[in-house]
Amino acid sequence: MALAAGRIRHTVVFTPRHAEGSPEEADFLAAAAQLAAIPGVEAFELLRETSPKNTYRYGISMEFVGAAEYAAYNEHPDHVRFVQERWLVEVADFLEIDYEAR
Amino acid sequence: MALAAGRIRHTVVFTPRHAEGSPEEADFLAAAAQLAAIPGVEAFELLRETSPKNTYRYGISMEFVGAAEYAAYNEHPDHVRFVQERWLVEVADFLEIDYEAR
Repeated sequence: MALAAGRIRHTVVFTPRHAEGSPEEADFLAAAAQLAAIPGVEAFELLRETSPKNTYRYGISMEFVGAAEYAAYNEHPDHVRFVQERWLVEVADFLEIDYEAR
Repeated sequence: MALAAGRIRHTVVFTPRHAEGSPEEADFLAAAAQLAAIPGVEAFELLRETSPKNTYRYGISMEFVGAAEYAAYNEHPDHVRFVQERWLVEVADFLEIDYEAR
């Protein structure tokens, strides 16, 4: 489904520091999946990254109705806590990519 | 809509060599949009990339039912010609990222 005008698709590709398939990685991914519960988050997906042309292992994709909802997500205590306590500690490499309709 | 098992979401973020908003850029993007017509391509999107955390300017996202359809797209003469005659000449920087369901 094409991205409607004004909507924002926020994505991030990443590789956990944990060994692939390890219980520690599974625990981190389970914590990341909880981001879907933060208000404003729509179309949440936690996916495998499978291109041989980069080294990222997973991706998260979510959509927001607009910039205000995206900002509220970024500032939400559950997001801030996840970034501080899990993401910055357990992610080795990542890249954020956001899309909007042309 | 969540990515169904077996489906592949092929994405690429990129920056044309052309000046932003130039007629040359518009012509390149129009040519890129024609990739949507290649058999097997589903859910095609040509989007602006808007995160301040990377330097890519646009993104393309498309989905395939499976690996055979993705391979057929890669080998399709219209795709091969576009890559050789336009992409490799007119794109300054890009990154391919592919997603599959976990």
